[in-house]
Amino acid sequence: MTITHKLALIGFGTVGQGLAEILLAKGDALADRYGVRFQVVAVSDLLKGSLYDPAGLNLAALLDLARRTGKLHDYAGQQPGRALQSGWDSLRTIRESNADTVVEISWTDVQTGQPAIDHVKAAFESGKNAVLTNKGPVALAYRELAELAAAHGVLFRFEGTVMSGTPTIRLAQNALAGCEIREIQGILNGTTNYILTQMEGGQSYADALAEAQRLGYAEADPTADVEGWDAAGKAVILANVLMGGTLRVADVDRTGINGLTLADVAAAKAAGERWKLVARVWREAGEAAGPIVADTGARASVRPTRLPLSHPLAGVAGAVNACTFTTDLLGDVTLVGPGAGRMETGYAVLGDLLEIVREA
Amino acid sequence: MTITHKLALIGFGTVGQGLAEILLAKGDALADRYGVRFQVVAVSDLLKGSLYDPAGLNLAALLDLARRTGKLHDYAGQQPGRALQSGWDSLRTIRESNADTVVEISWTDVQTGQPAIDHVKAAFESGKNAVLTNKGPVALAYRELAELAAAHGVLFRFEGTVMSGTPTIRLAQNALAGCEIREIQGILNGTTNYILTQMEGGQSYADALAEAQRLGYAEADPTADVEGWDAAGKAVILANVLMGGTLRVADVDRTGINGLTLADVAAAKAAGERWKLVARVWREAGEAAGPIVADTGARASVRPTRLPLSHPLAGVAGAVNACTFTTDLLGDVTLVGPGAGRMETGYAVLGDLLEIVREA
Repeated sequence: MTITHKLALIGFGTVGQGLAEILLAKGDALADRYGVRFQVVAVSDLLKGSLYDPAGLNLAALLDLARRTGKLHDYAGQQPGRALQSGWDSLRTIRESNADTVVEISWTDVQTGQPAIDHVKAAFESGKNAVLTNKGPVALAYRELAELAAAHGVLFRFEGTVMSGTPTIRLAQNALAGCEIREIQGILNGTTNYILTQMEGGQSYADALAEAQRLGYAEADPTADVEGWDAAGKAVILANVLMGGTLRVADVDRTGINGLTLADVAAAKAAGERWKLVARVWREAGEAAGPIVADTGARASVRPTRLPLSHPLAGVAGAVNACTFTTDLLGDVTLVGPGAGRMETGYAVLGDLLEIVREA
Repeated sequence: MTITHKLALIGFGTVGQGLAEILLAKGDALADRYGVRFQVVAVSDLLKGSLYDPAGLNLAALLDLARRTGKLHDYAGQQPGRALQSGWDSLRTIRESNADTVVEISWTDVQTGQPAIDHVKAAFESGKNAVLTNKGPVALAYRELAELAAAHGVLFRFEGTVMSGTPTIRLAQNALAGCEIREIQGILNGTTNYILTQMEGGQSYADALAEAQRLGYAEADPTADVEGWDAAGKAVILANVLMGGTLRVADVDRTGINGLTLADVAAAKAAGERWKLVARVWREAGEAAGPIVADTGARASVRPTRLPLSHPLAGVAGAVNACTFTTDLLGDVTLVGPGAGRMETGYAVLGDLLEIVREA
């Protein structure tokens, strides 16, 4: 038996198109293997336009239009005889479409987490599950959103917020179920890891940064990466989701890599060590919990750290991400994989959707 | 709400006692977090004796007796007024106890997989799930056992057969759901990885082997480890379970590390490489499937391999295990963790049990 699970995509940029390509290519295989067919019933994108067909949109046509024209306006003319709505805004799409799950992948303001936070709340309040991939809303409002989802009996997943599709959160929550996670150390920002790897090869910080920008790893304004803000947001998510914390990004003890010199790199090398920008999450034993009852004293830092070459994170080179979970029963378990990318983040959504189907 | 899930332990050696310690220490936490309390109703061990209490045995008393006397005989006298059976053999325990799941952790003949295979079959035929940690039965009879479990509507789990409790199979089957696994490369034998790490430090093969034996990593007869039989059995499990193969251990193209010299190690080092005993599983494209309909052409090899230092497995040092999954959507995803140990393998069982509860 194959069930149909209906999706509304809020945003149809890189991640949404990556997801659509995956669903097109693997739809039959997913139905065979997992007994589910994901059907995109709505797409709502501020720039490209908005479409809703309760019986399912044609993904190949959507992808073709988005690539050729950057707009979805011509879709209706290509699909005569369908009960099609166009022009619904994101909130109306979330509330009034017949989607089972809202995939929130719109442009998001990092400071406020909006409009993603309101989108996810509207999904839960309409009895729909939500998946997102932008770290901002989860770093800012995880607890509130998780409680709202639980109150409405729906599911909230966001694997793509940390290490893109590499299943870091699923590993910790499901595959390591029954283990207590005592500490997390991660290389959670590929741009800075690429720069540090290049510096070990002798390139200066400025040259390595320029090359990262040329390759598309770093933004024109590299602040979020090199000053550790991106890694700090991810550390907050791991702390709050996996270790019961109540941290905000401002609580993270944060130092970037922008002060590191080739002399620092050489000194580490001479000592058999290697600089990595390590995000660390741990519990402060005996820490007063303060007014928030369930706070477990989770703390986080992001800082350049000299690791011995034998450390499981020391060998992680280039734009790759990795995360070491120190557990009570298994000691250290390390997951290494991609931390960004169009298909990788598209897969993050698919993995979350398969988990929602499994758990719902 | 907390459900009770009843267990019969077939075997009460290292792994069984490790599991019992974990259940004693974490029983309340597991009930809180996962809503399940695991209750050991039966223990049947060829040497220590056999007990069955449909309302649950006292784990602390069992552990104390096993440690002090090596026997369970005195248990009845310590627990007056209980409806206790003693002396049931393993098959009677499996068939007639009220256990939901049989944990098969008895001594197993590597060549025949017995008596574990018969134990697991009896469990399925009595409508009970089965968990095991010995690789032999899964390497020899995975397909037959999986089909029998499905026919009886029960579950079969064996995470502990590869990388002990490090959740290799759960990562591939659940956390990476939706990805196609195209190739697997693993360091699946800790003993040989320890020996190779020592040889890189300048120790001869013979000295490194002797040290591994002194530390308890290697058996007095190290054949199974150093000739690659152990890794080959694990490769067969990964091939047959994760890639639809129908391999037997004899089908694995297998070379051990016993021919490697310090000169070989030095030559690799000079070339910026490192020897690892790599188990590899891949699909032979276009391979004739033969009479077995579902065979996918999965093939496996175990052989000493020179890896560039940038390879995700190259940095895995000492008695640690690791596995790289090459996937269609994420590229390489690598999991690194312990490959042996009393608590680690005890946890393998707990992880499987939590999954059974989740899926049942």
